[in-house]
Amino acid sequence: MKKAQIISIGNELLIGDTINTNASWLGGLLTEQGFYVEQVFTIPDDYDIIYKKVKKSLQQSELTVVTGGLGPTHDDITKKVLVDLFDSKLIENREVLDFIKMIFERRGFTFSRVNAAQAQVPENCEVLFNNKGTAPGMWFEKNGNSLIVLPGVPNEMKFLMEKRALPKIHELFPDREVWATRYFKTAGVPESTLSEQIGDLDEFVNNGVGVAYLPGPAGVTIRISANADTLQLAEGKLTKLKDLLYEKAGDVIFGEGKNLKLEEVAGKILTDNELTIATAESCTGGLLSSKITDIPGSSAYMKGGVVAYGNEVKISALNVLENDLNKGGAVSKNVALQMAKGVAEKMKTDIGVSATGIAGPGGGTDEKPVGTVWMGFWIKGDHFALKAVLSNDRLLNKERTVMIILETVRRRLQGVNELPYQLKPHSA
Amino acid sequence: MKKAQIISIGNELLIGDTINTNASWLGGLLTEQGFYVEQVFTIPDDYDIIYKKVKKSLQQSELTVVTGGLGPTHDDITKKVLVDLFDSKLIENREVLDFIKMIFERRGFTFSRVNAAQAQVPENCEVLFNNKGTAPGMWFEKNGNSLIVLPGVPNEMKFLMEKRALPKIHELFPDREVWATRYFKTAGVPESTLSEQIGDLDEFVNNGVGVAYLPGPAGVTIRISANADTLQLAEGKLTKLKDLLYEKAGDVIFGEGKNLKLEEVAGKILTDNELTIATAESCTGGLLSSKITDIPGSSAYMKGGVVAYGNEVKISALNVLENDLNKGGAVSKNVALQMAKGVAEKMKTDIGVSATGIAGPGGGTDEKPVGTVWMGFWIKGDHFALKAVLSNDRLLNKERTVMIILETVRRRLQGVNELPYQLKPHSA
Repeated sequence: MKKAQIISIGNELLIGDTINTNASWLGGLLTEQGFYVEQVFTIPDDYDIIYKKVKKSLQQSELTVVTGGLGPTHDDITKKVLVDLFDSKLIENREVLDFIKMIFERRGFTFSRVNAAQAQVPENCEVLFNNKGTAPGMWFEKNGNSLIVLPGVPNEMKFLMEKRALPKIHELFPDREVWATRYFKTAGVPESTLSEQIGDLDEFVNNGVGVAYLPGPAGVTIRISANADTLQLAEGKLTKLKDLLYEKAGDVIFGEGKNLKLEEVAGKILTDNELTIATAESCTGGLLSSKITDIPGSSAYMKGGVVAYGNEVKISALNVLENDLNKGGAVSKNVALQMAKGVAEKMKTDIGVSATGIAGPGGGTDEKPVGTVWMGFWIKGDHFALKAVLSNDRLLNKERTVMIILETVRRRLQGVNELPYQLKPHSA
Repeated sequence: MKKAQIISIGNELLIGDTINTNASWLGGLLTEQGFYVEQVFTIPDDYDIIYKKVKKSLQQSELTVVTGGLGPTHDDITKKVLVDLFDSKLIENREVLDFIKMIFERRGFTFSRVNAAQAQVPENCEVLFNNKGTAPGMWFEKNGNSLIVLPGVPNEMKFLMEKRALPKIHELFPDREVWATRYFKTAGVPESTLSEQIGDLDEFVNNGVGVAYLPGPAGVTIRISANADTLQLAEGKLTKLKDLLYEKAGDVIFGEGKNLKLEEVAGKILTDNELTIATAESCTGGLLSSKITDIPGSSAYMKGGVVAYGNEVKISALNVLENDLNKGGAVSKNVALQMAKGVAEKMKTDIGVSATGIAGPGGGTDEKPVGTVWMGFWIKGDHFALKAVLSNDRLLNKERTVMIILETVRRRLQGVNELPYQLKPHSA
């Protein structure tokens, strides 16, 4: 199996200012690509350490990926190392320079010498053109081993890796033993419940199929993987387990794909059913509509929303009855129901959803503790509310509420009876 | 300066299933404690690699912290390495064993041999008793250097480090120098512009003051740090540079603190000035109101918002003139201006802000490329719009737009003339 090593450069990573998410993302990608990711080295912006580490890794492993140390204020330590390591010299890359100038023009920034320096690259590297930023990626070869150098800004690093480096990797390492990996995304079911529902998988694990439950704030992901000489053979090893997962937990699996998002799936279902949606948010403060509109093309089904933080807005913008606000309080079944129906009527949509709750950390009472959330649903006339009591973490409560609402919409539209966390609907 | 190295053990870290947050947390803590954190090594559950790495680090640095590889499933490897490295043998720790049994009783789990194994520790280590879990921490000494071995579960690792390891560190390394670190947060100014505005800092750097520009999607953070025998002396070394930063860049520094957020500062200014705000969002889809309401107590100044994704909603909910929508299109100065004023009037607030743009990746034209955003402001009657052309990354564009709007509000209310990215206001 081809060996890969990752070198993350940057003092900020060592002193705890930045969490090294790049290494984790690269590790996942290289593993899928059939490399054995042996080590990750996180090192400071220090010439000697960078030089020693890159040189050694280049000798030890078929593929080395270096990230960081290329920003305009990193005084080019990394580039100096590369120049010395490959006894090369820096030359100006015209294409990169023009692109950087264009970016600065477009944004109306003043172009400066430090920016021009970013267009300087070692003569003997292949430039990986960076459409997302000013620091280009670089590809080097030495004794049949490869070295990829990328900027540390995550979205630029990911772009360069996927769009520029991967094609070269496929071409240079054709004989990799490939991994087939599948991610099954679930929402609204705890890890323990899910694993019990699916049951014992030793039969598969003993036959070399990897299984992992990966819990996250937005739900649990089931990851299964197997390797073989060809992707087809590896995929074949997963078929039986895949069928089992759908048989046992099909209702709570909203889709497949490591980065698949619930809002993406919900959006597709709305599109397929030619349905429109609007949101009425209090405690989630706009996070729900923001997630829905994270998806390109969401304007096809998302008409809009109201963030009704103050009670006056609940009344004026959503037709919530003042009487109900005074009687049951803003965090109540009736207010949630009226917000959902109100926004659907105002914005003339098929579906209206709402959230009103006590996000925390303060504001809780004995009868309505912090984390109490009422969610309202108006789905083509089907009118009901759900109550959940979540944590005392404000941001987590916002995220969980959004997830429950989206998953409830998905399950209702796909005819799944059980609701997230087995919540019971309160009808109007 | 005492040198420290961190070794993170675990395949899950290398294949990208888990992000290595432990290393970042430990790096921050050890730096504060006056250690130079030279490297972080992330390695697999592999005897040879663990043996080599721990042995080498123990020779190279005064302090080595190892996390992971102690769970009931793979404790053997790491402990075997430790036994061989210190040619010791495993003995059962009575206190730990009783504690583990107690935990299992309490949770009603059946106690098994693998669990008992966790009470086995190398004879020559000092046990760091773990009140939070079943895997104890261990402290080793060799040739005056120290090795701390901790479980990988974050809350257990943190507990053992703070409550068990720190007291020993203070006792064994009394002569450490302590670090004073300050974080200055800026928004709306590119890293290159900021560093040129502040100018050459060699005078400070040569006197042992560390300076770093940390760019992020929400702005650039300037970190300065110095070490001395006492915190007071270290702080003293920063005074002059701190004054210089405020003198050169005070206008763009919105506050101090590693985790300070712009929405928090904006919220405080609104509170202090007893002003209320409402938002009207198209391309940001609710992200602006969500950020504002991330701050506890934001209901004091945030009345609400309208997510006007469809044009009908812009007209019905925000009084945008249909004529202007048809003439200039939804992404235009007039629409942005009307959205801001409209939402302030509808929700009876002092301030209304709006965003309408082409978030991308699609929908761009020659005259209005992807990333074109118009932002509207109605600040106590002061009515103007800003135009920015951002990237072709949808989510980044949403985040940048929110940042520009919040920073514009902050600068206007604090009497700063220059606007983010030196944008020019277009008056109504």
